[in-house]
Formats: sequence, C-alpha cells, structure tokens
Amino acid sequence: MSFNEKYREYQDIAENWLNSIAGKYLPSGDGIHEAMNYSLMAGGKRIRPVLSIAVCDMLKCDRDYIMPYAAAIELIHTYSLIHDDLPCMDNDDFRRGKPTSHKVFGEAMAVLAGDGLLNLAYEIMIADMAKKGDSGLNKTETALLIAEAAGISGMIGGQVMDIKSENRDITYEELCSMHRMKTGAMIKAAVLAPAVLFGAGDEILSNLAVYAENIGLAFQIKDDILDLEGTGETLGKPVGSDEKNKKATFVSKLGINKARELLDQTVEKAVEALATLENNDFLVKMAVFIARRNK
Amino acid sequence: MSFNEKYREYQDIAENWLNSIAGKYLPSGDGIHEAMNYSLMAGGKRIRPVLSIAVCDMLKCDRDYIMPYAAAIELIHTYSLIHDDLPCMDNDDFRRGKPTSHKVFGEAMAVLAGDGLLNLAYEIMIADMAKKGDSGLNKTETALLIAEAAGISGMIGGQVMDIKSENRDITYEELCSMHRMKTGAMIKAAVLAPAVLFGAGDEILSNLAVYAENIGLAFQIKDDILDLEGTGETLGKPVGSDEKNKKATFVSKLGINKARELLDQTVEKAVEALATLENNDFLVKMAVFIARRNK
Repeated sequence: MSFNEKYREYQDIAENWLNSIAGKYLPSGDGIHEAMNYSLMAGGKRIRPVLSIAVCDMLKCDRDYIMPYAAAIELIHTYSLIHDDLPCMDNDDFRRGKPTSHKVFGEAMAVLAGDGLLNLAYEIMIADMAKKGDSGLNKTETALLIAEAAGISGMIGGQVMDIKSENRDITYEELCSMHRMKTGAMIKAAVLAPAVLFGAGDEILSNLAVYAENIGLAFQIKDDILDLEGTGETLGKPVGSDEKNKKATFVSKLGINKARELLDQTVEKAVEALATLENNDFLVKMAVFIARRNK
Repeated sequence: MSFNEKYREYQDIAENWLNSIAGKYLPSGDGIHEAMNYSLMAGGKRIRPVLSIAVCDMLKCDRDYIMPYAAAIELIHTYSLIHDDLPCMDNDDFRRGKPTSHKVFGEAMAVLAGDGLLNLAYEIMIADMAKKGDSGLNKTETALLIAEAAGISGMIGGQVMDIKSENRDITYEELCSMHRMKTGAMIKAAVLAPAVLFGAGDEILSNLAVYAENIGLAFQIKDDILDLEGTGETLGKPVGSDEKNKKATFVSKLGINKARELLDQTVEKAVEALATLENNDFLVKMAVFIARRNK
C-alpha cells in the first residue's frame, strides 16, 4: 500500500472516530452542538490522530484503545483553532476553506464552542479511564501527558507568546520556543500518547520524542513557507497573513533559502531518530509528507 | 463555633488550597500566570469549595483528598466568569469590585487565561488520579461528575441558553432549565464530589442531590433579587444589569414578592433533604446563608 493510501486509511479511521463522538455527544445538530460539529467535522488533515494511529500500528498495539486519547487531541486542536481565529486573536475569516466559527455563529458562540470542545476532550478521556478492565494500560499517564501539552506550559503558553510577539521583534530563539509550545507540544503528545498508553520502553519513548519534536518544527517551517508561496485556494485560508500581521516567521527570520535548508535538516533528524525502531516505514514517509505538503 | 466562624474557616482552607496551586502552577507572576492569578485569587465567596469541604466534614472524611477536585471546581468556575464577562458575552467591566480580566489584560489574554484555568483544572485532577495509593477512592468517577457538570449538558450549555435568551422572551420553564445548568450544575458537583469520592451510599447521594439542586436554585433567585435591590458597592459589580441587558430573571418573571416566596420554599426543600443525614448543621445553615447573603 502506498503512503498516500495508508494516510487515507488512517485519516478515515480518525474521521470515523470523530463522527462517532459527534453522534454520541453532539446529536442535536443545533445550538452549541451545531457550532462544535461545524469546526470538528470541517475536514482538515487530521495529522495528530493519524500520527497516533501510525505509532499504534508501529508498536503493533490495538488501535481502539488509543481512540479516546487521539480523538481528545483533535478536539483540543480544534478548540484552539476556533479561539485563535477570534477577532481579538488572529481575526481570521476563513479556515480550511470555510468561514471561521465566529463568522458563522457569532463571537459568543465561538468562544463557547471552543470551551465546549476543550471540556469534551477531557470528558471523553475521563469516561475512558472510568471504564473497568483495561487495567494494563497507562490511561491516566496518557491523559496527563495530553493535559500538560495542551496547557500553559504547552499549547496555550505558545499562543500567549504568539499574541505578545505581534508588532514586536522577537529573537530566533523566542520564535523556536513559541512554536515548540504552540504547535509542537500537541504533535509530540499525539506521537507519544500511544507509546505511553501501551507502556513502551524508555528508548522507544526518547526516540519518538526526538522524531516528534522535529516533525513539529518541520510542520511550522513549512507552514511559514506556504504562507508566502502557497495559494489561498489550496490552503483554504488567505496567504500572506503573517506579513499582514507583522508576525515573525522562519522565513522572515532566516530568509526563504535558509528556511528551506532548515526544513530539510529537520526532516533528516526526524528520520534518523526512527533508525532503531522497527516498522518505521510510515512514520519516515510522514516526516517527508509534512515537509512537502502543499496545504 | 458560629456558622460565620465555621464558614470563614472553610473559606480559609479553600483559599490556602488555591494559593498552593497558584504557587505551584502559576509562579512567575507575569504573562498568562498573572492573568490567571488575578481572577483566581480575586477573593469571592468560595461557595463551591466551602460546600465540598463541608460535605467532607459531614461524612467525617479526610479533607485533603477532596482538595484537587474542589480546587478544580473553583478553577472551572473562575474560567467561566472570565469568559462570561467578555465583550462578546455579558460585556461586564467589574467583577468582585475589580476590573474584569479583559479590562486589565485585554481580550486575547482574557480568553487564554480562561482556557488556561479550564485546562489546569483537569491537569490537577488527572495528576491526582495518576498518584499511586489512595486506591479506595473513586477519583475517576468524581472527575467525570465534574467534567459532565462543566460541559455542554451543564454549565456551558446553560451559558449558551443565556446568550440565546437575550432580547427574547423565554418561558419560566426555560429560565429554570437555564439556571439549573448554568449555576446549578457546578454547585451540585461541588456538593456531590466528596460523596462520590468517598463512596457514600445511594440514600446519602440522592438526599445531597436534592439539597444541592435547591441551594443552586436559591442562589440564583437571590442573585436576581440582589441585582434589583443590592448596592453596587457591596456586590462589587453594577446592579440593574439584568434589566439593562433585558434578561429574564426570577424577579421579572414572578415579581419580587413571588420570587421571595419561591426563595423561602427552595431553602425549606434544601433543609428537608438533609433531615435524615447526621452532622448536617453547617449545611442547613449554609442554605439559609445563601438565601440571606447581601452579596
């Protein structure tokens, strides 16, 4: 099976998981259910749950057990996009080719839909922890990993740095630190969650951590390049927004050529980290995919 | 010890718990830490953790075990106030006598401080669940109770109804349903959390549930009366905001006299529900306190 076919297979699994969650928790199709559904089922690449499923497969573990945690990560990612797009934050009108939540449902509902998705992510994880049986799995440690990645030392902290860096010249180190928290933390959580849940050994954990940190960085560098060189039609959101918002990016800090070099080096490091792991084929190609995507 | 002395004792315990959480998780005193600290340590009556400690005492259980859950409830309550006060929601400038979060830190930081407190509430509960030992306690069930109360079927759902009811004539049933979710759900969770954690029997649980539902309702009726009759100085926020925002209240629906009657009946029902429980003295007086408070 080609990488693209495999990616599609994993993406479909993630999509089905999210659909079943929407069916269970957001059945009414109106009010807050509608707003949460709108953003959650807006497509997207589903990179985070795809990574979790892929690591599960690499470790030859049962995918179903990671489902509540991988889905929770995607819910947390989705809430963060809704809040990031708000007029008081990045003030974006389009996301994934569709009007953003506050454009469709109003600001108050967008804030609440985000709050609702964040809370639901925990509700789903805790409900899974409350299930009897499965006692060999490190469920609580997995949920804690995700909670720390999502919080003020992770994703939220990165968003704070982002807000504070607008119209201010930040250093290259600050830029790296911001993205390590803002996008990197949750990507790392998605990669490590199955390894923690199924009790993988320290060597696997540390190799996966290096892999995850580098694909997280690659993801952001590529994002910055796409904002300069991509097309709005493919991206589903306006290009050039970084320049418009005077945001520091890897491109603005390094220039386009050095940014491309760094992207290549980052992918190499990610691939190297997988060298001692068996069944690493998909994850190797995933690193390349993240660097070559056009949206 | 008088009720007031006992309340103060419980309030101090709650304040110390929250202080230790702030010291551990929000040590830096700037950025998002400052914004989260500002709202979390703004005083307030601490009714929810006081209720949790009081139920703990009534059940003669160790208070320390309920701490992460009672504190989490207060963090969730605090985040909801920050988001409720936002310009796109109730647009309130003052809360507990101090400028609201977005007035001090700006809207973006207020959204993120709220997100940060919600996430931290779960981080604290999950970290407690991950501790070894204490295996006789129903930690996961307690966290699930809180998550469900905070979510779209509880507090967030109530806030959605509130937003949708502005400038629209809602029925008395809708008003009750809205408050049962918006304020009632988390008050009920605060009362039930210790009973669930320590594995109280079904009769105790169902009596406490009736008690909690009635003090939750009493709390809201009193809030509506205070908005009409209280003073801004004592309340720490402007009075008459319900009328200004054209919000349906128990007073606007029933008239002031009927609202007072309903308040008395509600307190009676709460007290009746405690009749078969031992050591109920503080909780009985708490119901009366909620109905007689002047802020």
